[in-house]
Amino acid sequence: MSDAYAAAGVSIAAGADAVERYRTMAGGARDPRVLEGIGAFAGCFSLRGYRDAVLVASTDGVGTKVLVAAALRRYGTIGQDLVNHCINDIACLNAQPLFLLDYLAMGRLRPDIAESIVAGIAAACRQNDVALLGGETAEMPDLYDEKHFEVAGTIVGAVERDAMLKVDAVVAGDCIIGLPANGFHTNGYTLVRKVIAENRYQDIVEGAPASIADALMAVHPSYLSHVRAVQAAGVHVKAMAHITGGGLPANVPRVLPDALGARFDRARWSVPVLMAQVVREAGLTDDEAYRTFNMGVGFCLIVARSDVARALAAARAALSEFPIPGGADLTAAMIGEVEPAHPCGPRTFIG
Amino acid sequence: MSDAYAAAGVSIAAGADAVERYRTMAGGARDPRVLEGIGAFAGCFSLRGYRDAVLVASTDGVGTKVLVAAALRRYGTIGQDLVNHCINDIACLNAQPLFLLDYLAMGRLRPDIAESIVAGIAAACRQNDVALLGGETAEMPDLYDEKHFEVAGTIVGAVERDAMLKVDAVVAGDCIIGLPANGFHTNGYTLVRKVIAENRYQDIVEGAPASIADALMAVHPSYLSHVRAVQAAGVHVKAMAHITGGGLPANVPRVLPDALGARFDRARWSVPVLMAQVVREAGLTDDEAYRTFNMGVGFCLIVARSDVARALAAARAALSEFPIPGGADLTAAMIGEVEPAHPCGPRTFIG
Repeated sequence: MSDAYAAAGVSIAAGADAVERYRTMAGGARDPRVLEGIGAFAGCFSLRGYRDAVLVASTDGVGTKVLVAAALRRYGTIGQDLVNHCINDIACLNAQPLFLLDYLAMGRLRPDIAESIVAGIAAACRQNDVALLGGETAEMPDLYDEKHFEVAGTIVGAVERDAMLKVDAVVAGDCIIGLPANGFHTNGYTLVRKVIAENRYQDIVEGAPASIADALMAVHPSYLSHVRAVQAAGVHVKAMAHITGGGLPANVPRVLPDALGARFDRARWSVPVLMAQVVREAGLTDDEAYRTFNMGVGFCLIVARSDVARALAAARAALSEFPIPGGADLTAAMIGEVEPAHPCGPRTFIG
Repeated sequence: MSDAYAAAGVSIAAGADAVERYRTMAGGARDPRVLEGIGAFAGCFSLRGYRDAVLVASTDGVGTKVLVAAALRRYGTIGQDLVNHCINDIACLNAQPLFLLDYLAMGRLRPDIAESIVAGIAAACRQNDVALLGGETAEMPDLYDEKHFEVAGTIVGAVERDAMLKVDAVVAGDCIIGLPANGFHTNGYTLVRKVIAENRYQDIVEGAPASIADALMAVHPSYLSHVRAVQAAGVHVKAMAHITGGGLPANVPRVLPDALGARFDRARWSVPVLMAQVVREAGLTDDEAYRTFNMGVGFCLIVARSDVARALAAARAALSEFPIPGGADLTAAMIGEVEPAHPCGPRTFIG
């Protein structure tokens, strides 16, 4: 059957093959929270142990990092980028991630490539104790080029209602701890790809030991372990921001009360080498650069000044135990502080 | 700022405009289950009122129906297709849908088009009492053609653990109630588009009053109201199947115990006119046709024979109250029954 469908560019056999590969991959220890539902029209997750659960959910993609992965034919880590991005987003709400569903679409369904991508998703889920509850794999021949794919994910976590962060907990004088980024993460790739043409991917980054390809594909880290380590050290983390599109100026003010802003001291951290090179080659102004890229800060925690030493020690210890992929030397720093916002200026100052 | 980014094909201003339009759209009555979370990195949903909640989640797209919508520049209903597809999937697990997150990607972010698409998503969510909890809109210039877009969604619902359906509830002799499909729903479009070229979209369907364009864009219905009406009539719905990719032969056996199969009497329902035309023009065999398209059955409920009359009456009354879009004359029928599976043959027989 399905000769007509195959001629139209959709292979039922390839779809079945991909699903079989996912099943094999999901083998091993069963997650007792995942229940058998009839017919597999959806995934079932038992939400036990909460008194007054608030579900916290986020959907994201990885931007045109998918095109870099496709060009390099490196499919194994893009799923980790996706999962970790999603985890960091809900970590900002103090939520524990519970399960994830993925959406994978390809111009031509190559079961081996689909398997590599989903293997990366599954690995990052396992590392963060997240159940990979389901997903959809679609073959869409005329929407995507034969060699291209798209991937998106939705994460669902939970937090006790009384453990939700309160926006007015943050006051002027609080300090901002920055956790380091190891590269572009999943942001700014459309510009990066314009500046760095594919024929340069095998070149070496200026003044660095890595190839441009490796630097571009550096895995977006999950900061969940580091956040939990800081909290476990008894620090009251008042607010958190995942530094994605829009950079520090767009993401930090989102978690501050309206009257407050943030002042950053850029001498406190370093910009990834390839990022600095892209900023230079693109001729971005400082303001443009900080609004386009994370500029080396992947995640911010806001704590009282009296908690800074303890928070930094805990974050650094956690970064030793769970190093940022490809960034064993990267560490946490006190990168700025909260101050009254300028009444008619921007809410962040990076000096 | 962001001149460089704009030159690379990503418009921050268009993104901000789209988000502003979503916000306006979401206005009106606030859903008290949706809580304010700091920073909007994720959506927050209060899960109250459950004793032992099982979360039921599904991710889906609408296949290359997006290409039909893009070709016709009809963006207002594709979001309804998406949401209703997701709702039907988790309805099969007896789950009540709670919230949805969408993923929208475009080659060039046109805020007006994004608004239309998300308006359709929001409308279907409202109709089904589902909170639109969040989403992601991505501009990805080199992955998608400038005129193309992709849309996917993740729905999360819940069911009390003791209200989950049990696969062994279904026995030989049980009957299958079919709820009518109004067209291809979100399935088989890659083949349909090969058979029906775009220059025929304005033609009239053979022997029907509708244009091919209208028939192709018929909105995938949500069957949730009809399912709930049958249950409210006191019928024990033992199992349910959403008839999507793979048709009746792939989807009904998924909800049956291994030893059972299903026998359908195709005289009991009718095939949508354009679907019959596509089957003819593509030269599909019966077997191919039933495995590729829903062939007129959108959703199946399995009930005891003694419940059939009551189930049919309730389903028909519900279809009068909540008619299938574009199918006011469509009604429910007893379309088949459960029987012991042939030991070495297919598990469905359509005669």
